[in-house]
Amino acid sequence: MPEVLFPLDSQKSFTEQEKLGHNRWHPEIPPVATVKPGDSFRVECREWFDGAIRNDDSAEDIRDAPLNSVHTLSGPFSVKGAKPGDLLIVDILDIGPIPQEEGPLAGQGWGYTGIFAQNNGGGFLTEQFPDAYKAIWDFSGQTATSRHIPGVSFTGMVHPGLMGTAPSADLLKTWNKREGDLIATDPQRVPPLALPPEPDSAILGGVPGGEFSRVSSEAARTAPPRENGGNQDIKNLTKGSRVFYPVFVEGGKLSVGDLHFSQGDGEITFCGAIEMGGYIDLHVDIIPGGMETYGVSENAIFMPGRTDPQYSEWLAFSGTSVTLEGEQRYLDSQLAYQRAILHAIDYLTTFGYTPEQAYLLLGAAPIEGRFSGVVDIPNSCATVYIPTEIFDFEVRPTADGPTQVSGGMPVPTAANPAL
Amino acid sequence: MPEVLFPLDSQKSFTEQEKLGHNRWHPEIPPVATVKPGDSFRVECREWFDGAIRNDDSAEDIRDAPLNSVHTLSGPFSVKGAKPGDLLIVDILDIGPIPQEEGPLAGQGWGYTGIFAQNNGGGFLTEQFPDAYKAIWDFSGQTATSRHIPGVSFTGMVHPGLMGTAPSADLLKTWNKREGDLIATDPQRVPPLALPPEPDSAILGGVPGGEFSRVSSEAARTAPPRENGGNQDIKNLTKGSRVFYPVFVEGGKLSVGDLHFSQGDGEITFCGAIEMGGYIDLHVDIIPGGMETYGVSENAIFMPGRTDPQYSEWLAFSGTSVTLEGEQRYLDSQLAYQRAILHAIDYLTTFGYTPEQAYLLLGAAPIEGRFSGVVDIPNSCATVYIPTEIFDFEVRPTADGPTQVSGGMPVPTAANPAL
Amino acid sequence: MPEVLFPLDSQKSFTEQEKLGHNRWHPEIPPVATVKPGDSFRVECREWFDGAIRNDDSAEDIRDAPLNSVHTLSGPFSVKGAKPGDLLIVDILDIGPIPQEEGPLAGQGWGYTGIFAQNNGGGFLTEQFPDAYKAIWDFSGQTATSRHIPGVSFTGMVHPGLMGTAPSADLLKTWNKREGDLIATDPQRVPPLALPPEPDSAILGGVPGGEFSRVSSEAARTAPPRENGGNQDIKNLTKGSRVFYPVFVEGGKLSVGDLHFSQGDGEITFCGAIEMGGYIDLHVDIIPGGMETYGVSENAIFMPGRTDPQYSEWLAFSGTSVTLEGEQRYLDSQLAYQRAILHAIDYLTTFGYTPEQAYLLLGAAPIEGRFSGVVDIPNSCATVYIPTEIFDFEVRPTADGPTQVSGGMPVPTAANPAL
Amino acid sequence: MPEVLFPLDSQKSFTEQEKLGHNRWHPEIPPVATVKPGDSFRVECREWFDGAIRNDDSAEDIRDAPLNSVHTLSGPFSVKGAKPGDLLIVDILDIGPIPQEEGPLAGQGWGYTGIFAQNNGGGFLTEQFPDAYKAIWDFSGQTATSRHIPGVSFTGMVHPGLMGTAPSADLLKTWNKREGDLIATDPQRVPPLALPPEPDSAILGGVPGGEFSRVSSEAARTAPPRENGGNQDIKNLTKGSRVFYPVFVEGGKLSVGDLHFSQGDGEITFCGAIEMGGYIDLHVDIIPGGMETYGVSENAIFMPGRTDPQYSEWLAFSGTSVTLEGEQRYLDSQLAYQRAILHAIDYLTTFGYTPEQAYLLLGAAPIEGRFSGVVDIPNSCATVYIPTEIFDFEVRPTADGPTQVSGGMPVPTAANPAL
Repeated sequence: MPEVLFPLDSQKSFTEQEKLGHNRWHPEIPPVATVKPGDSFRVECREWFDGAIRNDDSAEDIRDAPLNSVHTLSGPFSVKGAKPGDLLIVDILDIGPIPQEEGPLAGQGWGYTGIFAQNNGGGFLTEQFPDAYKAIWDFSGQTATSRHIPGVSFTGMVHPGLMGTAPSADLLKTWNKREGDLIATDPQRVPPLALPPEPDSAILGGVPGGEFSRVSSEAARTAPPRENGGNQDIKNLTKGSRVFYPVFVEGGKLSVGDLHFSQGDGEITFCGAIEMGGYIDLHVDIIPGGMETYGVSENAIFMPGRTDPQYSEWLAFSGTSVTLEGEQRYLDSQLAYQRAILHAIDYLTTFGYTPEQAYLLLGAAPIEGRFSGVVDIPNSCATVYIPTEIFDFEVRPTADGPTQVSGGMPVPTAANPAL
Repeated sequence: MPEVLFPLDSQKSFTEQEKLGHNRWHPEIPPVATVKPGDSFRVECREWFDGAIRNDDSAEDIRDAPLNSVHTLSGPFSVKGAKPGDLLIVDILDIGPIPQEEGPLAGQGWGYTGIFAQNNGGGFLTEQFPDAYKAIWDFSGQTATSRHIPGVSFTGMVHPGLMGTAPSADLLKTWNKREGDLIATDPQRVPPLALPPEPDSAILGGVPGGEFSRVSSEAARTAPPRENGGNQDIKNLTKGSRVFYPVFVEGGKLSVGDLHFSQGDGEITFCGAIEMGGYIDLHVDIIPGGMETYGVSENAIFMPGRTDPQYSEWLAFSGTSVTLEGEQRYLDSQLAYQRAILHAIDYLTTFGYTPEQAYLLLGAAPIEGRFSGVVDIPNSCATVYIPTEIFDFEVRPTADGPTQVSGGMPVPTAANPAL
Repeated sequence: MPEVLFPLDSQKSFTEQEKLGHNRWHPEIPPVATVKPGDSFRVECREWFDGAIRNDDSAEDIRDAPLNSVHTLSGPFSVKGAKPGDLLIVDILDIGPIPQEEGPLAGQGWGYTGIFAQNNGGGFLTEQFPDAYKAIWDFSGQTATSRHIPGVSFTGMVHPGLMGTAPSADLLKTWNKREGDLIATDPQRVPPLALPPEPDSAILGGVPGGEFSRVSSEAARTAPPRENGGNQDIKNLTKGSRVFYPVFVEGGKLSVGDLHFSQGDGEITFCGAIEMGGYIDLHVDIIPGGMETYGVSENAIFMPGRTDPQYSEWLAFSGTSVTLEGEQRYLDSQLAYQRAILHAIDYLTTFGYTPEQAYLLLGAAPIEGRFSGVVDIPNSCATVYIPTEIFDFEVRPTADGPTQVSGGMPVPTAANPAL
Repeated sequence: MPEVLFPLDSQKSFTEQEKLGHNRWHPEIPPVATVKPGDSFRVECREWFDGAIRNDDSAEDIRDAPLNSVHTLSGPFSVKGAKPGDLLIVDILDIGPIPQEEGPLAGQGWGYTGIFAQNNGGGFLTEQFPDAYKAIWDFSGQTATSRHIPGVSFTGMVHPGLMGTAPSADLLKTWNKREGDLIATDPQRVPPLALPPEPDSAILGGVPGGEFSRVSSEAARTAPPRENGGNQDIKNLTKGSRVFYPVFVEGGKLSVGDLHFSQGDGEITFCGAIEMGGYIDLHVDIIPGGMETYGVSENAIFMPGRTDPQYSEWLAFSGTSVTLEGEQRYLDSQLAYQRAILHAIDYLTTFGYTPEQAYLLLGAAPIEGRFSGVVDIPNSCATVYIPTEIFDFEVRPTADGPTQVSGGMPVPTAANPAL
């Protein structure tokens, strides 16, 4: 069975481990290990905040979350013979929370979903939800339940939120240029438009001390997905998936982290998945020259696995690109999806959920979010589908009206101090 | 079995039929029939261009498509007892192309997908595809194939592109105001930002002659989806679906049209579905006061059917909110989906498809388009999933490289005369 | 769209129609039409008892059902060029009840399920259910409900219970020989072990009068499935299925009938499906010499369609090959399935259903019946899976105990006069 | 995460472990541990032959397999408060092969499927396959491939072949009586009709030495499934399943073993699943008095999990109850399934597989075996469905004829010495 190439000890912080990972993208971060095409190996992954979020009933940890320190990535792994222009085939053989451990670290039998405060990260609906909130989820086999959100349980779609190859020096420059240009259009915005390189809290694996300062000032933040895959937060990258990554540097330099026990499409609360540490088993191979052969140069393509949880009854909500204030926007699917989500939240609150509970639930449960119409000027139409089978009460509209959920603790909240 | 409340004769144009439908939204359009809660009935629907598009190998009809005349809607149907504030339950019992007819009208055994010219409608990728293109699809039972796109066949997800209730006078004013405001920001734009009321080619059912001029100058165009449902182009509204529409006027005044034999998420080529005429069997009921009870006031909510075609192997592409020119945009899912689609097109062209063939295929086949990440500043991540089983060749990336499709006629093309 | 090659008038009996079908298998029954490979065509089908069963609340029609007259088959259709040794490819393009008709004939908006009396047909559990029972099902789009079985509704899996090619003269002799040998082992058994050729009520299409007597005394009854396909009652032969039949005579001579709106695996009540008349659209083609090429000589092979109703939560029961009296049998899967069904019936009666209601429901609903263990001496293990989503109440075991169904008329019953 | 209540050391034999399991059913076998309702715990399981089968290319180990020693069960586990008449709820939280081990024991990264020789176990098609055969399967994540069966790979449906509660003394007597009566009808049969209590190789956990002789002569063999669940070999008891077992003794006394990486319906080669050791995580609860409340007294009922591998294209074969020699049997589904399997084997051999390869494949791959018609006298109709996506070549019938598989080692064979 797969050798553990990147072991983690749950008792130690990310920087005290046997092998040191990284939390920035840079081509000069040296590999922690080299594997061959055809190899299978296990990688242990730290939850993205390195243990800063606790299994308790306060949201102060979310309010004060150390955003500069994310994401704690395991790797990079160099694949022998991989050359720029190749496609790196990565099979996700297995993935799960930390095996057989109980404890205070997310992944040890539990995980969390957070809504970030507007001045510390924000999120999809940050104007409607400017404060910090948290929900704790308990794992029982494949199933998640929360003491903070009564009446629901669902089968997780475990996946890595973040996986990707290293950028070349040129590609890194392109990222920094285009993101810097965007930031420059409104540098004081809260939350910011993008995150520039940030030496504070940078972890760069084996980058030598003499280079650390330069590299940390060049290295890209891990928040956005980019040409190398990265923080795609694709809930469908479950067990059995095969991903094809472009190779930009010798060896490809694959890294992975930010494991999620479950997530809805969009990871809408920013920290919307159920965050955890755990393990992932990978198998790698190469298609030499595959980037040109298949026209794949700036995105990871993939084939999802076959064992995602099956639900067969869904309740769906739609939204269009009109703002809450009634302003018409032109074919804005991002806005349309926000409106669809808000419609779903409005609906769920008639069953007794607070808006925060509904929002946290939609971030974490296996909901589907689809581009339904993207051309019918001026309105995009986005739809969100919630499996009715995750509720233990009748959630469909009936002549009897909504039953009221009961039980459950209040959602932990921490007021945004900037408000 | 359901009585035909809105019959159509394929030999006659939309305005020559026994009952006259409409192609604008207005509360004063009188019902063509009144039904009771609990009733089932059949509605026949005209293809949206009333027969202007032909089963041939030229795209001139698409280039010159009469956009002012759409959509030819059947209805409105008044539901006895439905009052503003209610939810109207509409079950789609059955839906299909024109039964047992062969002929020159879309829906008579065939349908079409079009890419509109940039100066006559445009579409999702109109900058990359400024000319007009067309593909004809033949129906064999549930299956669609095209002489213009070799190597594929798929099971249709038949659905109504457009269904909805009538707006109240106030709601109509809101629509006209907000869309007018948007148009006013760039009135000369081609394609336009939105479509204002347009008396030319307006069809208003039984609106009396004396009111026609006023009503036609107020009535909303049918292109966009809005609070009443409308042109949502939700591919999942298949047989067995239940939709809950807000009721804004007495009787609800339900109308339906724009049937699609199949469609991918987004209906990306604008006329991206396989367009056809046909029939739809509906069952209606009411939840009195349901809008407030369930917090549903400005969107149709729905439960998809259980008999959508099952595919179990998918090839997926991702895109982020960076323009083709390399400019970074802020969390723009519309753009991210465009980039995902362009990546899919790039990939398919390595198998010998022309970009037009690939684009038309992605509009019509049952592809899934998902909001994968909407919070990872500055990049949204959108993903598009193509079922591999619709191809009759190996479409997955392999070390052998892509096989080349053969056969098939060239895609009909008509140059954009404005270029 | 497909030409109707075998039209039926619902006002007339099977023998008064424009084209005359048949209710026996014999190679000399001449084709009613000849089609070419690649052709599509529509066949209308009569319900199997030719209208003898009524939409009422008595089971006397079931008790006295004219078993000698079944099955009323449409055809045969000769496929040009098909020769013995070929495989005949038959695609089921579409299938459904009688379009747009309401009336007294099964298929006109309704269908029935029956339990035959032990002395007139019997059934899977005839010792436990020796009398006659009936349930009427109403169709609403794809959905079936019954006034005789409250609390359930389900999406039908419409399929032909019976389809097949004509036997050669030799094959027919083989059938008559082997079935006659079986009957001879217990000729007085009630119900009988098998059904010999029976001139009474025989319908033989265009067999000339001079040959009628001989042919009717040779022709095989249609009850059992055999090498030619025939009455397989495979619920998975739904829309979109492709079947490969062995060809035993020139032209293949395909016939079809016994349409079912829905059925559970096994069609356990004998007339366990929801019986109806309707239409089926077929497409045919040939693989020359395919029988030897693919080793297919004595069974129809097939590929089910992709649009069967999706259910994702099931409640399952198991049974082993021990009789109700406690006698151990050796690896008898037939018995094990009986016991699994009886366990399911026992369970459902704790919710207030009568045993007859439960039995009729299991015959008609889309239940799955599987061979789970067939080698663990001495007990076979059979399992039956019921989708929980077809019930409108909580049907899973809980600490609260079973709720009681209410409403619904008593199941029509007619005592077995022989008892 | 779940505490390991029954640990196993792969270096030691079953009887040398820290806790001693059992391989017979008897109410007096004392519990190895006691759990409370609501508890979750891990149980490690030995492969059923305790390591007698090797990862090599000989079938001598299968030919000589020590059948008296099976099945090596972990348990029993007593559930506090469970009383006769209760239903014991068992949730399968997780299940898999031996984590992170490679080695010579089945479950350490590999498993096996065997065909037993007719004089040492036999199997479903023992007359056609009287010798011993073996196939070795390698695990890569969820996927199984075999060096002995080229051209296929599939996602496993991991499940326990055997789980159940202890019989009461009365129930045990019933078993021994009825099975003894069956054996007495043909005591010399090879293979035997059933397996009587057998002191040789009996393992009885903590049964005290003074009682061992008596208990071993009374204890039931574990081969057949019975009222307590037992060796049901239900492939659908995958992760996420919930099983409700009747409780016959104080504490219920649950035992489990015989883990399978995958299996087709029927486990047709006897040792037809992919056999392995591994772990299973269970959660238990009680419905007091549930046996009477729900009418569940002599079978385990269950709800399968939601994460079984999805396949969407199937090739199916049918069989009827006519013997290979042409003798007609009366509604014999066991025979019908044998014939369906033989038809599938005949088909696969036209692609170059040997009959043994095809038979072993059908035992191990996730094929579906259904009771299609059980009432159409005199022929039962059974069907078997093979997912086409498990083959890496075109396995559907086409005009081009079957391609030929290549590669793969010969299937290990050991001649039946009795022949």
